[in-house]
Order: sequence, then C-alpha cells, then structure tokens
Amino acid sequence: MTDPVPSAAIDLILAKRDGRALTGAEIDWLIAAYTEGAVADEQMSALLMAIYFRGMAPAELRAWTSAMVNSGERLDLGSVVPPTVDKHSTGGVGDKVSLILAPLVASCGAAVPQLSGRGLGHTGGTLDKLESIPGWRAALSADEMVAVLNSAGCVICAAGAGLAPADRRLYALRDVTGTVESIPLIASSIMSKKIAEGTAALVLDVKVGSGAFMRELPAAQELARTMVGLGGEAGVRTSALLTGMDTPLGRAVGNAVEVEEAVATLRGEGPPDLVEVTLALAREMLTLAGIEADPAAALADGSALDRYRLMIAAQGGDPDAPLPQARHREVLTADQDGWLRRLDARAVGVAAWRLGAGRARKEDDVNHAAGIVCLAKPGDEVAAGQPILELRTDDETRFGPAFAALDGATAVGAEPAAAEPLVIERITSD
Amino acid sequence: MTDPVPSAAIDLILAKRDGRALTGAEIDWLIAAYTEGAVADEQMSALLMAIYFRGMAPAELRAWTSAMVNSGERLDLGSVVPPTVDKHSTGGVGDKVSLILAPLVASCGAAVPQLSGRGLGHTGGTLDKLESIPGWRAALSADEMVAVLNSAGCVICAAGAGLAPADRRLYALRDVTGTVESIPLIASSIMSKKIAEGTAALVLDVKVGSGAFMRELPAAQELARTMVGLGGEAGVRTSALLTGMDTPLGRAVGNAVEVEEAVATLRGEGPPDLVEVTLALAREMLTLAGIEADPAAALADGSALDRYRLMIAAQGGDPDAPLPQARHREVLTADQDGWLRRLDARAVGVAAWRLGAGRARKEDDVNHAAGIVCLAKPGDEVAAGQPILELRTDDETRFGPAFAALDGATAVGAEPAAAEPLVIERITSD
Repeated sequence: MTDPVPSAAIDLILAKRDGRALTGAEIDWLIAAYTEGAVADEQMSALLMAIYFRGMAPAELRAWTSAMVNSGERLDLGSVVPPTVDKHSTGGVGDKVSLILAPLVASCGAAVPQLSGRGLGHTGGTLDKLESIPGWRAALSADEMVAVLNSAGCVICAAGAGLAPADRRLYALRDVTGTVESIPLIASSIMSKKIAEGTAALVLDVKVGSGAFMRELPAAQELARTMVGLGGEAGVRTSALLTGMDTPLGRAVGNAVEVEEAVATLRGEGPPDLVEVTLALAREMLTLAGIEADPAAALADGSALDRYRLMIAAQGGDPDAPLPQARHREVLTADQDGWLRRLDARAVGVAAWRLGAGRARKEDDVNHAAGIVCLAKPGDEVAAGQPILELRTDDETRFGPAFAALDGATAVGAEPAAAEPLVIERITSD
Repeated sequence: MTDPVPSAAIDLILAKRDGRALTGAEIDWLIAAYTEGAVADEQMSALLMAIYFRGMAPAELRAWTSAMVNSGERLDLGSVVPPTVDKHSTGGVGDKVSLILAPLVASCGAAVPQLSGRGLGHTGGTLDKLESIPGWRAALSADEMVAVLNSAGCVICAAGAGLAPADRRLYALRDVTGTVESIPLIASSIMSKKIAEGTAALVLDVKVGSGAFMRELPAAQELARTMVGLGGEAGVRTSALLTGMDTPLGRAVGNAVEVEEAVATLRGEGPPDLVEVTLALAREMLTLAGIEADPAAALADGSALDRYRLMIAAQGGDPDAPLPQARHREVLTADQDGWLRRLDARAVGVAAWRLGAGRARKEDDVNHAAGIVCLAKPGDEVAAGQPILELRTDDETRFGPAFAALDGATAVGAEPAAAEPLVIERITSD
C-alpha cells in the first residue's frame, strides 16, 4: 500500500526515538536516500534530535560513519612515499597549531595531508587564518593536493565537495537545528572526513574547557575514545591527546595575528603553552608514523620554517608579503594590582568573533585583520591600568559588542592561581 | 551581528533540548514566525522532537495552545440560541459515535457545532464516513455552518483553512517526522481547534487500548487531564470520558458500513456497546450544556433520527440514497469451537485500512465501500468454521495484505473472557 521509501524514513525515526538501534542496512539506505534528496531535511533533523537524546550503539555508529565515507570518493595517497599522518583539533580559541605542526612533522620525515575547515561561531578555522596570506589558495584538486604533499611534505587545504558529501549536508543541517553537540554525531562527522582523506595515521587534539565544544573532561574523554575506536576499525592508526582550553592558546586570537604567531613559533620564538602543545602533538604523530626524530630540534634549526615557506608558496601564497593590519585598536586593562588568575577562552573567542574575525553565517566573509592579542596570560603579574588584551578591528562599531562579551572574562587576584596541565591525557586504542 | 530571527529559532531549539521551558513571548514569536515561513520546517521538526523528549510545563503548554488559536480566526457562535456543546474523540476503530451523537444531543435541545477530520492510518475519519452519502458536502463556509446549526441543531463539517492554521502545518509536519505521539502536542493540537471553533462546552472521548493512540491507561489519563485543563483555562467547559478501544466499537469498520450502522442505531437498533458509549457521551454533553433530558428516549422515539436526516439534507446529502456496496467479500472464520475472547481493534483497523477504507497519504482518496463487518464480538459463542469477520473491498488484490494484518487478531477459547468496562473513567476539572 505505502510506498517503501517514505515509510522507511518515518519508521527509522520512530525506531530511534523509541530507543532501538538502527541496522547497518537501514543506515546505508538512509544516508544514501538523504544524499539523493529522497529523505527530507525535516525528517533528518527529527532523527538527528532523536540521536541527540538516544545516542548510538557502537555498531550503529560504525555503520553511520561508513555510510558517510561511502557517500563520496576516497582520496588515494598511495603515490606518496613517506608515511602519512594527520592531526585534527576539535576546535579552540587561538588554536593555530596546524600551521606550525604540519610543516614541523613534515620536516621530521612524515607526509602530512591536512584537510581543514573554516571557523563557525567562536572558534577559528585554519583555512580562514591562512587566507590572510596574499595569494594563498585553500581550494586544490586532488592532484594538486598530492603534488604539494610530494614537494613540501605537507599540505593544508579544503576538503573537496566529493569527500563525504553526506557529512557536508548533515553538518549544515545540524548547525541550524540544535543537533551539533552529540558525541556520536561529532565523532562520525570528523572521522568520516579523515577516513575518506586517506591518511594512514591520525592524532586527535580533543580540546577541553570553556573555549571548547566539550567543556567537561568526561565528555571529552568519551568523544576521544569514540573517535579513536572508529579510526582503528577503519584501518587508520588513531590516538588522541586531551588538551586544555580554558584559556586561549598562545597570545593571538584571530586570523592574520595567528599567522604571525605561528611564523614566530616556527622561528623558535613561540609562547611556551603553544610550543608545549605543538611538540606533544608532533611527538604523537611521529610515533604513529614510526619515525624517530626530535621535533624541538626542527623548530630550533629552522627546518620546520623552511617547510612552511615551501607549502605556502606551493599553494600560491607569498610567505614574505605583509599581512593585513587592523585600522583600530583598543585595550582592556587590569582593574587592580595582582596576578591574572583567569582569562576565559570562550569570552575571548566570542569577542574576537564580534570584532570580525569569525562569521555569523556560513555565507559571511571573515575580516582577516580583526582579532585580539593577549598581552598578559594567567600566571602573569599585572598592575592596575595595565593592558591585558588588545582588541583590533576595521569597524569601530564592533568594539562595543566585543567589550560586552569580555565582561567578567578576566580575574585579577592577590596570588597567582595554580597552573593547570596543558596536556591532560593520552588516549589510544590499546 | 547575527540577525535576531534565525538566532532566535536555534536558541529556542537549544533551550528546549536542554530542558528549559520556553516563555510565552518566545512561543508567540515562534508560532507566528513558523506560520509566516520565517522558521524552517527542519528547525520546527527538531524542536518538536525535543518537545517529545522533554515535554512541556503547564504554562508553556497554555502559551503554545493560545499561539495556535491566535494564528487564525475564531468562529463566532454568538447568534446560535441554544447552548453549544461539542464532542471530540481521540480516534478509534469503528468509532462512528459522532454521526449518532450530534443529532441525538441536538434533539435534546443543545446545538452541536462539530468540526471533524479525516482518517489517517488505521483510525477512520468522520468526514470520510459521511462522504459515503451521495451529495453530502464537508466543506462549508462559516455562514453556512451557522445556518445548518440553526436549522438542524447540529452540523458536522471540515474546519476551514483559517482556523488554527499553525496547527494545520504542524500536524502535517509531525506526521512525517515521528513526533505525533507527544501528549502536549496532541493536547494542544486538539484543543486549539476546539477553542477556535467557538463551542461553549466540550466532551472529550479519550480512547484507551490497542486500537487507540494511547494504549495504556496512565497515558490516556494524562492526556485527558491535560486537555480538560486547557479547555477550562480558555473558557470552554470541558470534561472527558475514558472509553475502551481494545475491540472495534460496534460491528462496522469502514465508511459506508459505519454510516449504515449509525442510522440503524438512530432507529433504535444499534449494537449494545455502541449505544452504551454514545449515551454516556450524550449525558455528559447535556450535563455540561445544563439541559435535563433523556437521550435514550430520543433514540427510541425517532427524534434523533429526524435531526440526522435534517442535518444530512442541509449539507446537500440524500439520506435515502443507497450507499456504495463493495464488489468483493471474503470471510475470516473461527478455527475452533468456543467463545470469542479477543478481536484486536488495531488489527481490524489496519485490515480495513488495507482494504481501501483508509488512506496511506493525506493526498489519497478513500474507498467508501471498503471495510469490515464484525459478525461476532468478544463474549459470543462461535463454532469452528463460523465466519467472524466479513472483509469487503472493490480490489481483490487487497485481501492478501488485509488477511495478513489479521494474523493473530482473534482468539477463541474454552470459556468466555470477563467483560471489560466500556466507560472506564470520567475526568473533570474539579
């Protein structure tokens, strides 16, 4: 009587809503039908909300991830000679690690094929940052990507439209339907793209804290374990580091300002927290790639910087070109003498976003010059009236909303706070 | 930065998802924006699924119901002289009560303005049944509706498009997104239409059992209490009877067959279960309308039948015209001697639906001749091979799926089962 196609969509929604795990065949049908447009957005968003509440069983999540990989093409990195290893961050404030890490690990002998994204909300995106560099191109064909990887040892570019197209549609839908913050949906979205990318190994940087998706450690641990499991089952050697994100990483938050800080770090002049996280991730990547090398030496001797310059130039960018500078600057000052005890990552991220560094909608452009420079970090001694943050923008009307976001974001006390560990935990499949 | 309209939709989804009650202002904005198309279906369906999981607080549900009433016009029944009282059933199998009850209560001195719906799924719709009658029209203007009400004392017609249009859109969306079975969403959908209809009093027939939406008593009680509360708060005197729906009501299930049984009942020749439920509802309606009268006498003396004929004729129908008869009939027989202990309402409803009496999609037509006649009811003694059900259809290929739906639907045992009460409970606002 009823046509099997629409009745199946509603049956799967009801099953999930009522707590039954979907079968592999059901998920394959669903993702294929959604990709083709045979399942409507309003049905998929109801299902996603049911998944938010019900979660997914391990076999269900494996099938969901595979179906997203199979919705598109898989890159073939078989022609790349060195062992391939990639890194993915769940997103933070001031997280310019990829810009340093890819050339650093390449200079140690691995090949780093990094497909990156753009920022949305208060977290920045690696592609937006690199587009501060005049001439640099994020969009490469698969052949161009492999060519840059072979010549520079690393490449950072946008995922092509053919890679996990189901995830692309689902992500856009989740963004407007309140279904982003689901561990199985986050894990399958990230891992489907990384599996399709063709890397042999992957290190996940799972951020924990106010500026991260996962504010609490147990949720971050669950996300990390879920993704490490999915990677292993798909034949990608995967491990994760949980790293702190209560405070911005480094001092720069924005686009051009983060490129400047990344280049300084590649020259051996990076802030200690950024260097610590970058080296920990580099060591983890080299371990997975089976390479014995000292990444700290590659930062010190300039070989990582050379790789960075090669990669930027191979993608059309001029590594020596001046970067955009904001027309207007204002500062936030300490309200008393003492020690800076807190500098809230989320508030700084939202303020930088409001200054123009981020986008409100996917269609918007970012302003490459806008951002924030942290002139003091938690643990520093400050005097009343001393600048703590420098806000930069090309549009003076944005200072008001940005300062509003920073209300309560800093705390100065009579004694320094105890330092929190930056690298909290390592999670492997063993 | 962000436009307030889309950010508000996602904010409301997140609030509901995370367990916060929405405010009256938020709900007013949401329902208005959805009615105008400013909130997308995929956002509303995600919110509906979050409501399914989180429920609604009493104040939230009142606001939601009011917003749906306010999305359209309200009928003005001020020119109708007798007290107005309506009945709504949550839907069952063989539930032709409205066809008898409206003229019966009218013949006792009340005015019954009944806006009815069409069947979907295994439960039938009053309008589909009445459309078996040649010439009868469901679509009346507000003026026509009041004119029939004044001349016949009762009217059964379709709700106009201007009445609670937000509910119309939401109902269609819920139907395809697995969000029908939510007590606050069911209650607000029913009550918004009844409040907008302008009746002064309302009796709810909340069905409980295998053939009903609410299979279990506690859920039916909660739905009844919720609707009685919403009615009282909107100034509509409302009470509810919980009635059994484990077995089809009466003997006929379909469209024309149910009209025939309703007319027989109006002639005083109705099956006892149908008569009992109809009289209980009639007494409840007359109590709410403040009228002292004996509805059993009005069935016996033909005055209810006169009102029925007046009403049908006033809406263009010929009460004496022959009704459509199905071309093909087959029977289901008892497999042993004994007493019929069980005749599952849902299975019979699904079988009648598959024979053509119901529709798979809202766009479909129903077959008015198709249906099932129950030749025995639970409590009857039967012999092996004796027909229990007669299946009727114009399309012989439908017998196979209909018999399949009836697999396990009947049970014959060595002793009769204890009779279940038909009217289970009365729920009032006191």
